[in-house]
Amino acid sequence: MTAEIVPLPRKQPGGSSSDKPTLDPMLGLTASGMNAVNAVILDRMQSEIPLIPALAGHLISGGGKRLRPMLTLAAAQLVGYQGNRHYKLAASVEFIHTATLLHDDVVDGSDLRRGKAAANIIFGNPATVLVGDFLFSRAFELMVEDGSLKVLKILSSASAVIAEGEVDQLTAQRQIETSEERYLNIIGAKTAALFAAASRIAAVVAECDERQEQALDDYGRNLGVAFQLVDDAIDYDSEAAEMGKDQGDDFREGKMTLPVIFAYARGTESERKFWKDAISGRRTNHDDLAEAVELIGKYDAVEATRDRARHFANRAIGSLSIFPDGKARAAMAEAAEFAVARGY
Amino acid sequence: MTAEIVPLPRKQPGGSSSDKPTLDPMLGLTASGMNAVNAVILDRMQSEIPLIPALAGHLISGGGKRLRPMLTLAAAQLVGYQGNRHYKLAASVEFIHTATLLHDDVVDGSDLRRGKAAANIIFGNPATVLVGDFLFSRAFELMVEDGSLKVLKILSSASAVIAEGEVDQLTAQRQIETSEERYLNIIGAKTAALFAAASRIAAVVAECDERQEQALDDYGRNLGVAFQLVDDAIDYDSEAAEMGKDQGDDFREGKMTLPVIFAYARGTESERKFWKDAISGRRTNHDDLAEAVELIGKYDAVEATRDRARHFANRAIGSLSIFPDGKARAAMAEAAEFAVARGY
Repeated sequence: MTAEIVPLPRKQPGGSSSDKPTLDPMLGLTASGMNAVNAVILDRMQSEIPLIPALAGHLISGGGKRLRPMLTLAAAQLVGYQGNRHYKLAASVEFIHTATLLHDDVVDGSDLRRGKAAANIIFGNPATVLVGDFLFSRAFELMVEDGSLKVLKILSSASAVIAEGEVDQLTAQRQIETSEERYLNIIGAKTAALFAAASRIAAVVAECDERQEQALDDYGRNLGVAFQLVDDAIDYDSEAAEMGKDQGDDFREGKMTLPVIFAYARGTESERKFWKDAISGRRTNHDDLAEAVELIGKYDAVEATRDRARHFANRAIGSLSIFPDGKARAAMAEAAEFAVARGY
Repeated sequence: MTAEIVPLPRKQPGGSSSDKPTLDPMLGLTASGMNAVNAVILDRMQSEIPLIPALAGHLISGGGKRLRPMLTLAAAQLVGYQGNRHYKLAASVEFIHTATLLHDDVVDGSDLRRGKAAANIIFGNPATVLVGDFLFSRAFELMVEDGSLKVLKILSSASAVIAEGEVDQLTAQRQIETSEERYLNIIGAKTAALFAAASRIAAVVAECDERQEQALDDYGRNLGVAFQLVDDAIDYDSEAAEMGKDQGDDFREGKMTLPVIFAYARGTESERKFWKDAISGRRTNHDDLAEAVELIGKYDAVEATRDRARHFANRAIGSLSIFPDGKARAAMAEAAEFAVARGY
């Protein structure tokens, strides 16, 4: 079977909610496994230093989807893995993710995370940086306990790539001339590398062949890009129902995300002047954000960004084609459709 | 041979410089190996993202002693190791250390590091946090390339302990009632754990027995405590010739280090009032620092801190007694004496 790419049906805002793809199949597939993962997370975020579980717990219990460990579990089911090594490794992946979120909040000076006060606002930047370091170290301790050098290689390499992507994003910040290619490189590193690793390690513990390992890596990587694209679209979507962060954060921080790249490329001279001022930080108030949202609407840049996400979601689904059809594959395919459609 | 403890000769300020212990024997012992380590460091701090080597290089080329990788090399010589695995691992240890220094500078809001502008001042907090994360990930990549799960366990565990120690130090900051025991726990974690790991991994690559591994761990741990104690003493030493950081930083940050713990414990009621005000942040100007230095002088608290350091240095030297006498052992013993005597 070739990795044929079936276009997703294009959802329209205001369409019937019953045909919306959801994460429910993925949640159902991994529910009991996620209980085991959550137990590891709660157990291993403990420390004799009370501030550590207090701060880590603020974010960890803060209602994140735990998408990355869920991916590890779903992929393990897809390849018929019967053991329980993946629980610890999925927790390790979530610790890496949590560490990067804590450091992101410091880097961005965020006020809100998942609709709650960000950890740095409550606990201060110093503790937030250091608890991130603790969780990152703990992630490696969990991998070492598992004992697979191959998994350690995948996740240490992903961690370095994530940091490179974050630094690259920082360098591109307030740079209006950032290209779509550079943007895709950045999100491929800062977001998709961990999605890819989370999927791939399932193939490693299940001792799959290289082709299956690569297919799961491809699935995770494309899914990660799709998720990030839609995250970035939602930040400018006036009709967005779901928001992962405080809407307008990217705008105020001068982050060059794809909706802005599109609107800037298509804009009139005076609009391009607006974008230059906004991204460089000279126009970032509430009215400026309203103008940005309007310009992005004018050029359908949110929809165009979703179209790109759709492309990556299709690739993610295509990479599943080498695996047998069944509940796991269907749930993972729907997760990719959900990545594109969410926020409507 | 038992681990007998020979008291070091107590050096006096102003004594003849010719009998001062130095790091020179250690530097001589490890010179050619350190060239190999430095080559790994320079090679592996590279990245396609130019800001990464620029920022990492600012600190890495900033004149640090590279004491920790030197320890790995000296310990490897002590146990007669003939291979070259330790170069990569010593570089990994230095990357972990560099990552913690970068994060420390953000945590402390430092202006200076090793007499130069701190990385966060030049490059900003966001990049400094993220490049720290990159180096930390790179450290694990180097360990994975080496392939010893035992080394990975030692260094991932040390990394978690370091982060715990840093968080604990943060919690104790501005807390006048911090006890000597808690202070020793903090420096045992934030500083001595990596010294211990740096020494211990030499025994692992050389496939030493558990007793030798433990002896090298003990040596590094006690040496690390001695170094940190004297670092903390130098911050209040009016006669200090060498300063690792901007003198008075600990005072301004309200860090409860041993000289302060001693002076507070021995102080009159009005002096204790001064310390409470100072450590809580109400009295931190230049005159307040001068008063602190005077009070610490009045109670010989710098010398008392050095006495504690002498105790740990003696323990470090004692733990070497199971190894054959020779150049390596002598150099490591003198490094412990140097730890105590430096700054005079």
